[in-house]
Amino acid sequence: MTGERMRAEMAEQPEALRRLADRFGDDVATVRGVLPDPLAGVVFLARGSSDNAAVYGRYLAELASGRPAGLAAPSLHTLYDAPARYDGFLVVAISQSGETPEIVTVCRRLGDAGARTVAVVNDADSPLGGAADAVLALGVGPERAVPATKTVTGQMLAMAAVAAATGPVPFDGAELAAMPDAVGAVLADPEPAGALAERWAQSARLFVAARGLLYAAALEAALKIKETTGILAEGISAADLRHGPIGVAGGDVPVLALDGGGAGREDVRAVANLARERGAPVAVCGDAGDAELPLPQGLPEALAVFPATVRAQQLAAAMAAARGIDPDAPAGLTKVTPTE
Amino acid sequence: MTGERMRAEMAEQPEALRRLADRFGDDVATVRGVLPDPLAGVVFLARGSSDNAAVYGRYLAELASGRPAGLAAPSLHTLYDAPARYDGFLVVAISQSGETPEIVTVCRRLGDAGARTVAVVNDADSPLGGAADAVLALGVGPERAVPATKTVTGQMLAMAAVAAATGPVPFDGAELAAMPDAVGAVLADPEPAGALAERWAQSARLFVAARGLLYAAALEAALKIKETTGILAEGISAADLRHGPIGVAGGDVPVLALDGGGAGREDVRAVANLARERGAPVAVCGDAGDAELPLPQGLPEALAVFPATVRAQQLAAAMAAARGIDPDAPAGLTKVTPTE
Repeated sequence: MTGERMRAEMAEQPEALRRLADRFGDDVATVRGVLPDPLAGVVFLARGSSDNAAVYGRYLAELASGRPAGLAAPSLHTLYDAPARYDGFLVVAISQSGETPEIVTVCRRLGDAGARTVAVVNDADSPLGGAADAVLALGVGPERAVPATKTVTGQMLAMAAVAAATGPVPFDGAELAAMPDAVGAVLADPEPAGALAERWAQSARLFVAARGLLYAAALEAALKIKETTGILAEGISAADLRHGPIGVAGGDVPVLALDGGGAGREDVRAVANLARERGAPVAVCGDAGDAELPLPQGLPEALAVFPATVRAQQLAAAMAAARGIDPDAPAGLTKVTPTE
Repeated sequence: MTGERMRAEMAEQPEALRRLADRFGDDVATVRGVLPDPLAGVVFLARGSSDNAAVYGRYLAELASGRPAGLAAPSLHTLYDAPARYDGFLVVAISQSGETPEIVTVCRRLGDAGARTVAVVNDADSPLGGAADAVLALGVGPERAVPATKTVTGQMLAMAAVAAATGPVPFDGAELAAMPDAVGAVLADPEPAGALAERWAQSARLFVAARGLLYAAALEAALKIKETTGILAEGISAADLRHGPIGVAGGDVPVLALDGGGAGREDVRAVANLARERGAPVAVCGDAGDAELPLPQGLPEALAVFPATVRAQQLAAAMAAARGIDPDAPAGLTKVTPTE
């Protein structure tokens, strides 16, 4: 069977997330130790899957701190030699390998420009770990499958710790402790993703729509589907989908709508209905009774991101299988990317 | 002939841009009048096509000011009631109609949270104009075609004025004065876009890749193609395309590479070659001799964004025509969008 590595690494997620949830307070303290005071804002620095974890961090950090958060544009510092002045800012650099040269270079540069820096890496002894003021080492073990799974959800939990270091986050300790089991419940129930994959596997294109805190999961779902299946999946805000691209949705362009059960629900459901009216195949991933990809009930939206991301991994792996593609070795991908 | 309105509004761009270039110094002064001192950072607030102008502003403002710039996440303020503290930040709110309720609400809210705010609108008497500390009114006349063209390039020039208010920008007055003629030269030469549209019109999917300052043009090119043709076009950073989605490029998924002739050139050209090796149809938009969509020579990269965006408008309109779609009334689009 193909995709064994990807599935094995997906299966490690509940335990990896439990370990990270257990040390959540320590990670928060690590970030607090380097937090600028006063805090001007938070900038996340990443590429690829890590960039999707960064988007989650960007929403949660601004929600927690009240200060503007955003994503770095690495090319400003590697190609244009921008005269960076980053005093007052926390920069969070995220790289699974900790070796992407571009991320290491820009992290160091923004630190030199006055930022306090946190590296989120799998292994503290990586170059990125050595380039930052503080390190959150996920320690989820080597990732051998090309599509990142356990490192992405691990990075997302590290993002929550970064956010919690800047202010109150919209979940409590009991809810955090329950999240890894919710991920486990999704992994123990692969049938819904398999059934949906059978229906959608021959699509050349699809949208994954979400709003607010689930937006990062939509981006990651789309990236995972693109990487593993060759389908051109686009992750998009429900608000932006309605603004124009909805014209693309239709008979052969399905829409996967991620409903985290919180403030984003109404908008995501409305866009799903709009897509249905246009004749597009629509599936909802959420905790309501009608969801084709069900999520365990009881998690706040900020934590529903985790089981939703894992549902998307399942869907991507199942769609790859249905298309006869080995997701462990998809075309065009190598594990460490040499962006300078 | 279909698409008359879109083509008529595209044709107004050289004159509209010339008018905005002539008053560039006044617009810079207007923004300087409300600039926080010291400046913590710049946040751009927009949706849809305006969001692509915002991306251009985000790069140029950080390059000019050295301070972090980024894009707002409106849902944080409309759905999650984030406790915003924006003192020290300049917020630039961009809306063609000036009426998108979400943008008006968030602009007002971030102003109440301590930001200084600039509205970039077509008409100063719009609700967004009334919600900001200063207004840059483009005055490019009513936009009747559904796909935004002249307002987008006008917004981009306003973004350059915002950036120039925060520090030095990478072009001079003579280069700025030459830019509208370069746009005019592109409009006077529709054949290359028509020929490429004939070759690519039957693709269901395509990528538009760029790096750095041209990235905004790639996003806008992709949005315009999606809106007018129903093709699932994705605008992507050359660095991110190489990180995985390159696996999607191939025989029936073309790649349009935007080469602004500056620091982004090497990376964009390398990814174009990678896509060619994978068998994907590739076309370059740039000022080098081999470009399928030629750009006039002599503009710095920061201004090459304008003729590149107009080339993409030409391509979108021509692809729509080749597919028998009226770009003035594409499926699924209305002019003012009611995101709350």
